Amino acid sequence: MRIALDCMGGDVSPIFKNISGAMEAVEKDGFEVILVGEKDALEKELSKCAKTSPLLRIEHAEETVAMDESPSSAVRRKRNSSIWVAIQLVKEGKAEAVVSAGNTGAAMAMAKVQFGMLPHVERPAIATRLPTPEGFSILLDAGANVDSKPEHLCQFALMGSVYAQDCCGRDSPRVGLLSIGEEESKGNELTRETYELLKRSHINFIGNIEGKDIFTGNVDVIVCDGFVGNIVLKSSEFLAEMVESLLREELKASWCGRLAGLLMKPIYRNFRKKLSHSEYGGALLLGINGVCVISHGGSSPKAIKNALFCAKEFVEHNLNKRIEEAIAV
Amino acid sequence: MRIALDCMGGDVSPIFKNISGAMEAVEKDGFEVILVGEKDALEKELSKCAKTSPLLRIEHAEETVAMDESPSSAVRRKRNSSIWVAIQLVKEGKAEAVVSAGNTGAAMAMAKVQFGMLPHVERPAIATRLPTPEGFSILLDAGANVDSKPEHLCQFALMGSVYAQDCCGRDSPRVGLLSIGEEESKGNELTRETYELLKRSHINFIGNIEGKDIFTGNVDVIVCDGFVGNIVLKSSEFLAEMVESLLREELKASWCGRLAGLLMKPIYRNFRKKLSHSEYGGALLLGINGVCVISHGGSSPKAIKNALFCAKEFVEHNLNKRIEEAIAV
Repeated sequence: MRIALDCMGGDVSPIFKNISGAMEAVEKDGFEVILVGEKDALEKELSKCAKTSPLLRIEHAEETVAMDESPSSAVRRKRNSSIWVAIQLVKEGKAEAVVSAGNTGAAMAMAKVQFGMLPHVERPAIATRLPTPEGFSILLDAGANVDSKPEHLCQFALMGSVYAQDCCGRDSPRVGLLSIGEEESKGNELTRETYELLKRSHINFIGNIEGKDIFTGNVDVIVCDGFVGNIVLKSSEFLAEMVESLLREELKASWCGRLAGLLMKPIYRNFRKKLSHSEYGGALLLGINGVCVISHGGSSPKAIKNALFCAKEFVEHNLNKRIEEAIAV
Repeated sequence: MRIALDCMGGDVSPIFKNISGAMEAVEKDGFEVILVGEKDALEKELSKCAKTSPLLRIEHAEETVAMDESPSSAVRRKRNSSIWVAIQLVKEGKAEAVVSAGNTGAAMAMAKVQFGMLPHVERPAIATRLPTPEGFSILLDAGANVDSKPEHLCQFALMGSVYAQDCCGRDSPRVGLLSIGEEESKGNELTRETYELLKRSHINFIGNIEGKDIFTGNVDVIVCDGFVGNIVLKSSEFLAEMVESLLREELKASWCGRLAGLLMKPIYRNFRKKLSHSEYGGALLLGINGVCVISHGGSSPKAIKNALFCAKEFVEHNLNKRIEEAIAV
């Protein structure tokens, strides 16, 4: 298997992080990674690595899409960019999947243009994993769409359900609709209409869930419009970081705390691991006729490695075919 | 000043928590509290207290609104309930404000029916405080409305701004619109239209803010529809609790951790204090022609005390008059 990696995407020193992540991934699991980006810069970074690997090769791309560039203008003007070229490799059958930690909107728009949509799917959705005490749940849409219609949310529910079952080993995944009250009558116009449709669908719909249920692990798939999903995702990422840093500060403020901090080092690592988004690697773009994993802009090498594994899993499970079959029913 | 307290409202042993909170409040700050609820039960609980106070008196209310009762049916059928009677005391001029930790929807509906709205305000909004590293920011609407219109969000922005300035001492409060991208063009239909209106308003509108900005403290007032606001509030409350409990578990799992846990006790208290919603006491129902503070169903005596202080502050600052003046401009 070959995966195309957009090596120019990410917030800080993206080339270093992407190449390190790719190196870790191919060493652990012998698939190939095509490093897409500015050739000289990639070669320079590769030469600094202690090791080399025959499983890594470079594909040149002249341009880079900036993190804050408008997706629509990038689609029109940046056809030589690393994201575009990486997606193109998949389209041409030279790779099976693409991974990018770059501009999410641009990656999404370019994937949509080049791959097209799966039959009967009207809109793509970003599926992301959220930590729970015992593992993770899947939330979609985490920001691909706003002002979704009830039919879109139903398609998201179905795609999320297939993903949870086939890629995450959940048997008959519990699908919840994110709302502000458990009863069918609660929520807004969109959720009330969606509830009606989901009730009649073939998935294991457990009804409305509330904000307080998101991180409990009592639901496998959380369905919502991308506006709400994105805000929940971003606010919870920040809050978890804030709680950690508040705790660190409190620990530093006294000798008792500093001693406790020393004792806690290994515990702390474990704790961080449970909450960290780098554990989960990346968000999947579901509904497009291709495999595209979008990693966090601030991705560490570890997060890139996990995003590559995530893409590999998607391909191995032939997830798009399974979604097509499910949606045709 | 007299404040009416719905003593039957809350999740677990509400009478005990409400009376204890009221006792703490009147001891600290000599206003009167009218304890509203089932007379015999309240007297029994009061007799168990180590102290008495001439600042507490009981007002009998036969009925109780259950936490899961439908607000509309409660409004129609429970006119002898503790929430209704407490609000009525304010309406009749026998108290200046009402506090309830009971059924939020019922309290809101009853307050709206009995008090009516302030002139030019179309919908009430729940304003709540969210912790930030250095203090708190104000989010509204936290769940009074769904499917709000741009004009409603503008009214929320204005009310929140007056509240932040007059009650929280923020000079020219920074008002942000919760969305999923900083640029004016980002967001959904509602936020894009609201942006246009806010840009032309007299408040200090700083533009869109994203999920990651909510807890930074870089904004004083966060404006959003109640559907999103409620989900953000509930998910963040749960997440903060989950992070704490994960940490506690990790600490318990080794002798190193248990020792660190002992050393950390005072630090932990400080840390909890920064995150705990009981510090903030209650959410204000803004836009109605009366003063109503809604406390969390799980409120501790401390949270009740703080909710009473919150109501007192509202009255002392004559906030409703200030909102009326601001909205008339």
